[in-house]
Order: sequence, then structure tokens, then C-alpha cells
Amino acid sequence: MTAQNLGRVLPILDWLPGYSRAMLAGDGMAGLIVAIMLVPQGMAYALLAGLPPEVGLYASIVPLVFYGLLGSSRALAVGPVAIVSLMVATTLGELAEAGSAGYLAGAVMLAFLSGAILLGMGLARLGFLVNFLSHPVISGFSSAAALVIGFSQLKHLLGIDIPRSHLITETIAHAVTHIGQINPATIAIAAASLAILLLFKSRISALLGAMGFGAASSDSLAKAGPLVAVLATTLVVWLFALDRTAGVAIVADIPAGLPPLTLPNLDMGLIEQLLPAAALIAVVGFLESVSVAKSLASKRRQKIDANQELIALGAANIGASVTGGYPVTGGFSRSLVNFTAGAVTPMASIITAVLIAVTVVLFTPLLYFLPKATLAAIIVVAVANLIDLQTLRAAWGYNKADAASLIATFLAVLTLGVEIGILVGAALSIALYLWRTSRPHMAEVGRVGETEHFRNILRHDVQTDPAVLMVRVDESLYFANTAFLEDQLLGRVADRPEIDHLVLIMSAVNFIDASALDTLETLAERLADAGVTLHLAEVKGPVMDRLKRVGFTKSLGAGRVFLSTHDAMCDLGAATDPKAA
Amino acid sequence: MTAQNLGRVLPILDWLPGYSRAMLAGDGMAGLIVAIMLVPQGMAYALLAGLPPEVGLYASIVPLVFYGLLGSSRALAVGPVAIVSLMVATTLGELAEAGSAGYLAGAVMLAFLSGAILLGMGLARLGFLVNFLSHPVISGFSSAAALVIGFSQLKHLLGIDIPRSHLITETIAHAVTHIGQINPATIAIAAASLAILLLFKSRISALLGAMGFGAASSDSLAKAGPLVAVLATTLVVWLFALDRTAGVAIVADIPAGLPPLTLPNLDMGLIEQLLPAAALIAVVGFLESVSVAKSLASKRRQKIDANQELIALGAANIGASVTGGYPVTGGFSRSLVNFTAGAVTPMASIITAVLIAVTVVLFTPLLYFLPKATLAAIIVVAVANLIDLQTLRAAWGYNKADAASLIATFLAVLTLGVEIGILVGAALSIALYLWRTSRPHMAEVGRVGETEHFRNILRHDVQTDPAVLMVRVDESLYFANTAFLEDQLLGRVADRPEIDHLVLIMSAVNFIDASALDTLETLAERLADAGVTLHLAEVKGPVMDRLKRVGFTKSLGAGRVFLSTHDAMCDLGAATDPKAA
Repeated sequence: MTAQNLGRVLPILDWLPGYSRAMLAGDGMAGLIVAIMLVPQGMAYALLAGLPPEVGLYASIVPLVFYGLLGSSRALAVGPVAIVSLMVATTLGELAEAGSAGYLAGAVMLAFLSGAILLGMGLARLGFLVNFLSHPVISGFSSAAALVIGFSQLKHLLGIDIPRSHLITETIAHAVTHIGQINPATIAIAAASLAILLLFKSRISALLGAMGFGAASSDSLAKAGPLVAVLATTLVVWLFALDRTAGVAIVADIPAGLPPLTLPNLDMGLIEQLLPAAALIAVVGFLESVSVAKSLASKRRQKIDANQELIALGAANIGASVTGGYPVTGGFSRSLVNFTAGAVTPMASIITAVLIAVTVVLFTPLLYFLPKATLAAIIVVAVANLIDLQTLRAAWGYNKADAASLIATFLAVLTLGVEIGILVGAALSIALYLWRTSRPHMAEVGRVGETEHFRNILRHDVQTDPAVLMVRVDESLYFANTAFLEDQLLGRVADRPEIDHLVLIMSAVNFIDASALDTLETLAERLADAGVTLHLAEVKGPVMDRLKRVGFTKSLGAGRVFLSTHDAMCDLGAATDPKAA
Repeated sequence: MTAQNLGRVLPILDWLPGYSRAMLAGDGMAGLIVAIMLVPQGMAYALLAGLPPEVGLYASIVPLVFYGLLGSSRALAVGPVAIVSLMVATTLGELAEAGSAGYLAGAVMLAFLSGAILLGMGLARLGFLVNFLSHPVISGFSSAAALVIGFSQLKHLLGIDIPRSHLITETIAHAVTHIGQINPATIAIAAASLAILLLFKSRISALLGAMGFGAASSDSLAKAGPLVAVLATTLVVWLFALDRTAGVAIVADIPAGLPPLTLPNLDMGLIEQLLPAAALIAVVGFLESVSVAKSLASKRRQKIDANQELIALGAANIGASVTGGYPVTGGFSRSLVNFTAGAVTPMASIITAVLIAVTVVLFTPLLYFLPKATLAAIIVVAVANLIDLQTLRAAWGYNKADAASLIATFLAVLTLGVEIGILVGAALSIALYLWRTSRPHMAEVGRVGETEHFRNILRHDVQTDPAVLMVRVDESLYFANTAFLEDQLLGRVADRPEIDHLVLIMSAVNFIDASALDTLETLAERLADAGVTLHLAEVKGPVMDRLKRVGFTKSLGAGRVFLSTHDAMCDLGAATDPKAA
């Protein structure tokens, strides 16, 4: 194995030998800033997943190291993310009580299974599979998931107990009917946290800039919003003992110490139950991760290897499963922060992991009085970014079928749930694509003046010969559109008895499958029965190679294959043009 | 409503007013010959479906009249067919004991449901849906179904009781282990029937021709093989009382009289249970029917309206369900006989129906001693035609993906059953199509000599400019291939730092969906980040219209849209060509 091949399998070998002090400076600063973001985010997302807060921290240590060793992206920041956490919650919610031992074991198992699936897909080079989720489907899915996530936090923001439901309407109805139970102190803390987060999000960067900080460092400091909210609200709860006096729900005891070693319980019944959800978590997580990795890599003209990413994320998830964590992936905003804060190698991730480990060992007692409402506010602000009307507006103006699949996915997620919703969306977008290709655009063409150019007779003023029908098909020919092609062509011929020749212009036909080949043969026969000769023109090289291999020209009988439409017109038109007689 | 529109809805109005004595002669002869074929076939297929023989006759009366009134084909012969009968048997076999009242009620319900589905599809104009079954899938399905049907008759041919199974291996194993139970008289009758049928199939036509009969009438007489086999074996069984003395299974009592009026039992539980199978029966039946109708129509330059066919077949099946029948469709060989025997209008079908009605009223006592082995032999000979190795050979030589979906469908039908098998095949052929379009052919092109022609640099000796990369994409751009496109292009640019311009040649791009539009925008941005300008060339009219509508050219930044590749080369090549400096 050459050094280059080895570097592809273990990308750390590419960057570690040339590692410099300057690189460490960038990676160190980025690692620190991401750690500051990740401590509150990790706990918040664990809460969203229905897990104890320390699970979110555990999932932010070993997985980062594993990704750092194997990942092909230089700036991806791995860890818990919102949508995957929601998917974990919906999956395990049907299985066990949140917080129970079974629930925890299920989370570990989900991490293990989705890790194994990612690893398997990477080794089988199945990375292309995720391409079948179209952008509108992903957009509709993200918007709907953001709404579901946001409303799932209502209970923490208001301090009332709302049963879990993927139906937003149910959640709202429950909140409204139990409005008397709202905890005033909780809602005040939530409001304050939201205010801090939004302030940091919108203003602090400009403010720090005005105070003379550099753009990069002021941007980075602005990301400390969650940390500031956590510190401020924890302090207030502790000072006024709001947990005891005002019933504010707090994080309370977080076990100190490094993550425990856990082994996924290899219970076949449980595996079978969790496998479909684990596959979806793997795919959705990979999709989020690889899209951010690609966008960052291209900024530095670097490459992302989708299959290597699958392997790295697979290892990261298996790492999470053996250290008491839950499914992780590359997060969008966190990776962007990592990149802009100066990360040049995965060393940044390893530094983040070390800092989180230090936090888990030393600082968890400081988080005892952290109110859950603050974590909920962090989630709400984070997912608000996912609500994406812009894509809908763009798709609506560009292509209604795309807009339809976006809206259908959005509604399916809200009414049928996250997992069925994304499957419905993916199936619909594929169906719409097949529907479109099954009815190809076909233009009858004529000659523009005395030129060699041929154009659509409906759009241009062209010359035609009544005995020669020339039709351009703007699609590859395959089983789903052969019947349409046949009906259209036979229909035109049946309507116009003066036609003697039909020329099929194949300039836009990239492929002809076996069904379409049959159809062309049958078509030639049926046209011959009706006294019409079928010809082809402008057949592409690779398509012609295949047709020649099976002796297709024999099926054409008296018909010919012309190099250009002009050749066909000269030959067939002259023979039947009344003026030539 | 104009007369023409009315004629489209009720095609009988098109032909009845101009009906002539000459037409009656042709239709009368065709109607008689089809009736002679249909009496034994109808009973045989009913046996295959696990139903009493009279059900096959009932299904050959009213459905033919209904199709005659509504169908758009002039020569289609509707009635029981082999594959649909097999599907009825597998569906009802899981539901009730063959021959029981529940089984009969299920058959009536299947006819009603598939009729309603066909009618609904016709009214909703969903005829295009059947196009998604590719020819190789249909071929694999038919071959496997023919094997399953053939082996299902083994029990009647050998006279032993073999439990129903879709696994041929099980059927054979049972026959072999119970070889001692074979009934010698039964096997002798089966052999004699097969001999008569094969003789008529292969020789009689030539023999009659040699005896001075015209080609058409000798062909038609050759189709009387089943009738001759039925008469000969019935006579032998009656003469020697083989039913009592040698244990030959006979058809026995067939109730005389017209079909009973039956009303499908609207039991929601039963409907829900039968609905998926009814949908598949409807689709498969429609497919068989419409393909034969089309092939006959084109011989006379007539048109088939797929949606009108759905309505007519829907009515025919509902007709079957209210007169004690079971699902019917247009049969291949029977329609061909009808056509060649001289049928010019659906009057031929109506005549067939009248003759079958007369048979049911008057001649059923004559069929008392008809041995089941003869009917089984008729089935075996009929389905042998369905075994289709030619399509496999052709597909193998032309396109391996098509051959793979044929083989997969064949194996899936044999191992998983008829219904799951065809679904597996359809899904696989769609997946293979998507896989192919997700990895489009992309060619880097260069200029041929000093011409305006540009060709693949790997295939031709062409001129290129190291600073200008020109790539032609041979596929429409949509969500499943955008990632591939992006990876390929960014990969080539990352490998060759000398590139300043990337020209995407769009002559074969018939469509760009919203995901691909996003990708092109991102690509332009990422290329710009890497110091490369993206240009387009040869964008098609309809594609350019859409791009203009959303102001795509702005996303190109400094990039331009060139009318031709030659324009792009002149402009970009000259600006960066070292020789020009």
C-alpha cells in the first residue's frame, strides 16, 4: 500500500507529519470556541433526545477523536445535533419511558446500529444512496422537523408537563388547556435566555466590532451566547434557590468523571426493532454532515470523499455507543464556527474533545442549578435557522413539481411523523421525476429558411414537407416513456394519411434501454404496416454503438440512419416534394 | 357533446351505424372460431383458478358484451386468461378452500374490485402507470408465471393430489415422493391430449393447406385443437366409463342455464384483504390486454385509447362479477385468432358471447365426462408459449441492467410468489434506471482541428487549452445526479490548478430541477472560491427560459452563457492561450 493510499484510509497520516506551531494556534483557538458552544448544546440536545444531559457531553468526546483520525474533512465538528436528537426521541419514545434504563440502552444501541450501517455503507461504497434525497425534500423535512423540535420544547419553556407528540396541534392544544399550570419563574428564565441568545446572535458581533475587536474574533465571541445564557440563568437559580422556592426544573446531579465504557446489548429483538430507525438516522445524519463538509472543503479547494466520510462517521457513532453516548454527526453551525475560528486540521476536534473531557471531570457540579428552560431556549434558537421558506419560494418560481415535493414532505413530517415523512417525500420526488421523464417533450421540426437548422414548427416559421414527419425527442428512451412515444408517433401518423416517412431526431437521446429498443422495432413494423418508413437521425455515438451491436438497422427495413436532420430532409424531402416532380 | 366525443366514450356508436353484411360475415366467422377456442379454454382457466368449470364459461358471456360496447379495440377478445387465473388462485388460496362458497365469493369480489380499480384508473386517466413495468420485467414475470402454472397442473396430469405451492421444487418433490399414486388412465389421457394439441399446433395448418384449404381457414381450423382433444377424450371416458373403472377425474355436473345474477358481498374486511391483489390483477391484466390491442390496431392504422381501454375492461370485470364470473382481460392468442379469422368490429365478440351462452344453456351435459387431465393439457400447451428465452438473450446482448432485472423478476416470482415477484421486479428496474441516470456520462471535449466541432478528448485527437476545461454532460440534471456532477467537476478542478475556466456543455440536458439549479449555483460559488469561472454553453431553449426566469445568470458572476462551444473556445481560449500573448 502506497503512502497516498494509506492517507486515504487514515487521513491523519496526511496532515500529522507536517503539523506546525501555526496550525496548532488556529486549531487551538477553534477547538476552544467549539467546546464553549458544545457544552450547552450537547446537554440541550440530550434533553431533546429525552436523555440525561451528561449523555450529550459523553457523545462529544470519543466520537470527535475517532472522526479526527478518520474523517476526510479538515473542519467538520462532530457531535450531537438537533434533527438526529429528535429522531432518537421519536424512535425510543415508542419503546421505553424517557430516562429509564431501557431508554438509555436503546440510545446506545441506536448509536451502535447507525454506526455499523454507516461503516457498512462506506465499505460497500454506497455513499451515492443519499443523493436520492432531493434538496426540496430535505428543505421540507428540515422545516417541519424544526417546528416539531421547537414545539417539543414548549413543556420546558412553560414548565408544564406536555405528553410527547409529533402532532404540533396536540402539543398546542395541551398547552392551551393547561395554561393555568404555567410556571412563572420558568417562563421568565426562558424569556431571559431567549433574549440573551437572540442578542448575541444579532447584535454582539457588530457591537464587538465597534469596540475594536477583529471581525473573526468578534464573530467567535458572538457564539458564546449559549454559554453566557447558561452561566447567567444558573447563577440566578442558585442565588434565589428557584428550584425549591419557585419550582424551576433544573439539570441537577450530573455524574462527574469520564464517560463509562458501555457495550451495546446484542439483543436481536431490540436490534430488529431499532434497525429501520437507525438506518434513517444514519442517512439523515450523513446527509447533514457531508453537505457541510463539502461546502467547507471547496472553500480551500480540498476534496471530500463521501465513502471515507461514511467510514469516519460510522466509527464516531460506534465510539459514541461504547462510551455511553448517542448518535452523532457533523453539525452545520458548529462546523462553520470551527472553520471560521481557524481550524485547519482535525486536531481542532481533538482539542475540543479534551476540553469537554476536562469539563465532565471537573466542572459538572457547576451545572447543578442549570435550568432546563435555558437548554430549551438554546434548542429553539438553534432550530429556528432550519425553517426555510426561501427554498420553497425559489422552487415555486422555478419548478412546481419541486415545490410540490417540498410541501408534501413538510406536511407528511408534521402529520405522519419524522421518519415516515421523509420516506414519503423521497418516494414522491422520485415518482415526480419518473412521471416527468415518462412524458418527454417531443417537437415536430421544420427547416429554417434555406439553412441547415431545424426548429420546432410551433415556435418558428419553418418549411416542412407534408410527406415527411420529423420529430425530435428530448429525453432518453426507457421503459416508462416508450408507450408514450409510440402513442404519440402512431397518433400523428394515423391523423395524417399523407405521411410516408417518419424521421426520429435523436440528438437528446442519451440512452435506449431494452424496452425502448423493442418499442422502436415494433414501431418500425407498425409504421411499415401503415405504409410509413421509420428513419433515425443524429444518433449519438455510444447509443449507435449499442444499436449496431444488436443489428438494429435491419429492423428499420427500408428506413435509414442519417447523420444529420439536414441529410434526412435532402434525401427524403426531395424524393416526395411535389415541386421536385 | 359532439358525435365524435360521444364515439370516444361509447365506441360502438362509431361502427354500428355503418355496419354492413360483409362486416357481419367476417365478424360471424371470427366469433364462431373464438367461441370454439373459448369453451375449453374458459373451463381450463377456471380449473387453474381453482374454480368450477362453469365459472370460466360465465366469465365468457357478459364481459364480452360489455367490452364490445365500450372497448376502443376492434379485435380484442376478452375472457379468462392464464396469468390472471393463476393470480386469482394464489390470492384466494390463502383465503379459503378451493371450491368452497367463500372461495367463489372471493372470485366474484376480485372481479368486482379489479373492475372498479380499472374503471377508476380510466376515469382518473392513470393508464400511464402500467408503463412502469419494463419489457424485461414483464418477460421474466411471464416466464416464471408460466412455469408456476405449468407445474400447478401436474396434479391433474398425473392424477395425484399435490398441495398447492408457488415453489416448483416443492411440487416436484411431492410428485416424486408420491410417484406410486400416479393414475395410469389419467396420465394416458393427458398424453393423448398433449399429442392432439401439439399436432394441431405444429402440423395441421400445413396439412390442411396441402389439402387445398385456404391459408386463413386452415390456420383457423388449426385452432380447433382444444375442441378436438375435448371431444375425443370425453368420448373415450364415456365409452369405457373410465371415471368409475379407472379413477379418472372428470368435470361432471355443470349446471345448465344462463349465468346466475350475483352481487359482490360488500364486506369491508374482505375488500381490504383482496384490494392489493385486485390492484395487481387489474394492472397485469390491463397490460396484457393493451399490448395485444395496440399491436392489432396498428396493423390497420387504428388507434387504441389506453384510458378508454381501462374503462371498457373495468366494465367487463364488473360484468363478470355480477354474473358469477371471475377476473377477465384481453387474451393474446385468442385476440390474434379473432383478428386473423376476420373480425372487423366488436360484433365478433358479441357473437362469441351469444354462442357461449347457447353452449351453457344447451350443451353442458355433453361435457359431463370431460376429463380434467385434458383441461390441464390445454393449459400446459397454452402457457408454454409464455416461456420467453429470446428476450433474455436479446437483453443480455444489449444491456446487462435489463437482463439483470429480467432474471431478478423471474427468480423473485419463483421464490417469493407471483405478486411479490412482480413488485420486486418493477422496483428493481426503476432503481436500475435511477442508478444509471445518477451517474451521467461526462466527456471532456476538445476542438477537432480548425473546425467548429468538439469531441471527447479520450476518443478523438483534439486541441485543448490547459486553462479551459470543457465538459459535456449527457443527462438531464436532477437531484440524484447533482452530487456526482459536483464531485466530478470539483475533482477535476482540484487536480489541475492551471484551470481558470470551466465550460459546461448542456446540449444533452433536457431539464434542470430545483436541486440541480441549487447545485449549479453552489458550484459556481465554489469554483469562484477556487479561482475558476463557470460558464455554460449550448443551453436548450426551454431550459434557458427557466434559468432566465430565476435570474440564474447572476449566480454565474463573471461566467457567461455561450450559444455554442465554439463561441466559448474562441472567447476564453484566446484570452488565455499562451500563443496569443
